[in-house]
Amino acid sequence: MKIQTFLKVSVILSAVLLADSSVNVIFADAMESAYKPKTHVLKANSETVRWGNIGKGDPALTVQSGDIVTVEAITHHSGDDYDRMIKGDAGVEDVFHWIEGEKNEALRGPGVHILTGPIAVEGAEPGDVLEVKILDMKLRPNGNDQYAGKTYGVNAAANWGYLYGDMVEEPKKREVVTIYEMDTEGGTDYATAVYNYKWTVQTDPDGQVHPTIDYPGVIVDHNTIDKNFDVLKGIKIPVRLHFGTMGVAPKEADIVDSVPPSYNGGNVDDWRITEGATMYYPVSVPGALLSIGDPHAGQGDSEINGTAIETSVTGDIQVILHKKATLNQKLSGLSFPLLENEYEWVVHGFSYANYLEELGASAQTDIFKNSSIDKAMKDAAHKTKDFLMAGMELSEDEAYSLMSVSADFGITQVVDGNWGVHALIDKGQFGDSERKAVGLRSSFESFGAKVSWKPTTQTVTISYNNNVLEMKVGATTGMYNGEIVKLVAPIEVVKEKVQVSEYFAKFYKAKLSKTE
Amino acid sequence: MKIQTFLKVSVILSAVLLADSSVNVIFADAMESAYKPKTHVLKANSETVRWGNIGKGDPALTVQSGDIVTVEAITHHSGDDYDRMIKGDAGVEDVFHWIEGEKNEALRGPGVHILTGPIAVEGAEPGDVLEVKILDMKLRPNGNDQYAGKTYGVNAAANWGYLYGDMVEEPKKREVVTIYEMDTEGGTDYATAVYNYKWTVQTDPDGQVHPTIDYPGVIVDHNTIDKNFDVLKGIKIPVRLHFGTMGVAPKEADIVDSVPPSYNGGNVDDWRITEGATMYYPVSVPGALLSIGDPHAGQGDSEINGTAIETSVTGDIQVILHKKATLNQKLSGLSFPLLENEYEWVVHGFSYANYLEELGASAQTDIFKNSSIDKAMKDAAHKTKDFLMAGMELSEDEAYSLMSVSADFGITQVVDGNWGVHALIDKGQFGDSERKAVGLRSSFESFGAKVSWKPTTQTVTISYNNNVLEMKVGATTGMYNGEIVKLVAPIEVVKEKVQVSEYFAKFYKAKLSKTE
Repeated sequence: MKIQTFLKVSVILSAVLLADSSVNVIFADAMESAYKPKTHVLKANSETVRWGNIGKGDPALTVQSGDIVTVEAITHHSGDDYDRMIKGDAGVEDVFHWIEGEKNEALRGPGVHILTGPIAVEGAEPGDVLEVKILDMKLRPNGNDQYAGKTYGVNAAANWGYLYGDMVEEPKKREVVTIYEMDTEGGTDYATAVYNYKWTVQTDPDGQVHPTIDYPGVIVDHNTIDKNFDVLKGIKIPVRLHFGTMGVAPKEADIVDSVPPSYNGGNVDDWRITEGATMYYPVSVPGALLSIGDPHAGQGDSEINGTAIETSVTGDIQVILHKKATLNQKLSGLSFPLLENEYEWVVHGFSYANYLEELGASAQTDIFKNSSIDKAMKDAAHKTKDFLMAGMELSEDEAYSLMSVSADFGITQVVDGNWGVHALIDKGQFGDSERKAVGLRSSFESFGAKVSWKPTTQTVTISYNNNVLEMKVGATTGMYNGEIVKLVAPIEVVKEKVQVSEYFAKFYKAKLSKTE
Repeated sequence: MKIQTFLKVSVILSAVLLADSSVNVIFADAMESAYKPKTHVLKANSETVRWGNIGKGDPALTVQSGDIVTVEAITHHSGDDYDRMIKGDAGVEDVFHWIEGEKNEALRGPGVHILTGPIAVEGAEPGDVLEVKILDMKLRPNGNDQYAGKTYGVNAAANWGYLYGDMVEEPKKREVVTIYEMDTEGGTDYATAVYNYKWTVQTDPDGQVHPTIDYPGVIVDHNTIDKNFDVLKGIKIPVRLHFGTMGVAPKEADIVDSVPPSYNGGNVDDWRITEGATMYYPVSVPGALLSIGDPHAGQGDSEINGTAIETSVTGDIQVILHKKATLNQKLSGLSFPLLENEYEWVVHGFSYANYLEELGASAQTDIFKNSSIDKAMKDAAHKTKDFLMAGMELSEDEAYSLMSVSADFGITQVVDGNWGVHALIDKGQFGDSERKAVGLRSSFESFGAKVSWKPTTQTVTISYNNNVLEMKVGATTGMYNGEIVKLVAPIEVVKEKVQVSEYFAKFYKAKLSKTE
């Protein structure tokens, strides 16, 4: 009886799905459909990365709005285990190449992160907003056959960590590096610790002595360290792949330390900046100049000891330029890095909303003396209220009440000089106005994708551009080109139609648009 | 083919489930099984509540370890809409009864919350730990036929709110009350706003004038206010029923303001203190003296405008006394209110870990001048590290690394004087040592419950003590005595056995132990 019902429903669904062919308005945008996005590949090497600077500079790549970029991002902590994280990987070796008198990244500093880019976006001007969709993130295979199939990451309890010196065991002012291991292919499940070691004095190729981790990326001489393999036994850290640093160049200075995040994004260190998420950045220089790096395999809100699981990742992103004159109410006047995903809007506040402007000429040193969660909370509170008022058309009293009864404020990081507090705003509470349901078939067919439905397994298959996405009703994972992927949301059957959110439809349209 | 497999698996499961009858060690505790828990009912009225004081006092009820208490908790904001939140409800009317020269709660103050209790636990002594499992939470029906089927709640943007006076619209220093409505029975889904009003000067029955909300609970004269019904139209706030205030009496003072939370719990205002959660409190006075109140229907982390959706709730709790000599490594020396649920440990930090001790004789006024998230973060960071070291037997370096790569720090509240930061620690990452899987059948049969399995629907039914719990494999909700309930976790089939976590088994053992 139950089984018969199941079959019957499936047959009905099949019929309904085929009938659902109305053209969906969200894809009717003429500008969007006129241009067929290109896919670019931006490999990381000493020519395509900058080390420590998120300021203005010559683009490593120029793209048009709508284009997709496969971008390699390399961790600046790779030197903590040369064998597992540099050796045999030509790109990483090139970036890290430094022998006496020969340093490929000669302009390292003032910050610490290896940033791929900048990517210039044609036509981007101050006042515009740059949207960046993260379509895919994959761990970078390590290049050493000895460790085939594994990718390694580093967590460094560093001198800029929140409890540095404030410890129980001696020496209180110690730095400890923990090496984590992940399956490169299995990918997004968990990390385990391999060993840890206390930082020892290191001398770089130019003879400079580093008693602390004052210059991340120095190749650690493993003859000077004691490896302790008895570390976090049996513990499986959930993997949360994300870009610690992604943002556009700020207008206030030419050379800008990559460490403090600000209105232009940068080192926001929010683990939600992951596959399936979309970032919006206010453009303040011509071309926008997007930089990407500091990839993380796992981080908690606060990044308390100074770092995440720092690893190398290759991502697919799509960049979409929103011109100032056409900005919607959420993006008009945007003054901070805004995150959207299937379920949430995330507002990012900082101790200083724009520290370069607020702290003046000595901003890049002073910011590290003025770190405060209290200040970041005040900033996040105001931004959240403003966002709800302008973006959701609420009165101030409505916005303030809604924030109190349903917005969650968390501590993004307390280690990047300009400390962060973020607010999570549930899109679902606004119903259709923020989480609009659309018919799956009509959404995807409207741009030429082929949609098919297998009633026996309740599986939808979407083909476009030689890419294939398969999803089962209600499942949290699907298959993308034969690989298991976490879906931004399960597909649902509502009133006998397969429905997804508008966000979902746009996201997978972008993902399927990638070409080889 | 697919369907045949389904049937086959079901039959196998059925057989396996019946065979799974090994005695489970977790229920072998002789002390626990020797005593058959009683169920008490603690109704709220002027005899059984205290208003504003979480200090020592005569118990409203005395229970034994293991007992279950159905406890009524009343919101102190009921006076903001007398018709919807007081009228016709004998208990609430009794608590709020105040005419000139006749005030049932004559000892109101120094804080604001109506707290049911205290509940004394026989044999509790300083150094012990009191465990409180929240087995059930239900909205309290309102007593006015005019509003039958609905329960109302109040969100007050109050003078103690985080952005008070720091507004865009005039008057900047305004207080705004928003009335929310919920289905009493449908219950745990969403709340909608009904109307809001600006606070007007109110005069209490003793002639005292209240230009601001300086004494919550004064019955607002609705002839003095303007109701604005155009508020948050179409928005459905997710309901998160929880107790804003729950805790034991601290030893440092006799009369203790209910507003600032501290090591003894109290007004922690973490929305995770909800059905399915377990709290652990350090006992510091004989009998522990547990107070419960300040029920909320919805709150975000930070409770930014000063209040949540303040409503009245009836809960079932189980209290379990852990004697000092028998404390396990997580509870030994516990110095803060610790939360556990199916998936997480939650550590609560405050600006001052024990403000009564740290700030001395004037602590109860000084705490409001020393509020700081930065201080609360420092406290939460240390407590989290200590908890991981003692509770999970990690070295300091392991604990510090794990915190950075996987613990999420959030801002609990910024409105209770002693501000809060909490850390979420994922239990799953520790595997069996923190989230142990046990056989469902053996767990429940070990204390005499009857377990049955229906293969056609993959449904487990557990009967005990005239209570019946039904759950389908993989479902997030089940049926409890005929009502839909959110499960603490879905039941799973692992290696052809129905498995649950040890936490799940203990929780539902307690829930099923309630008698009429």
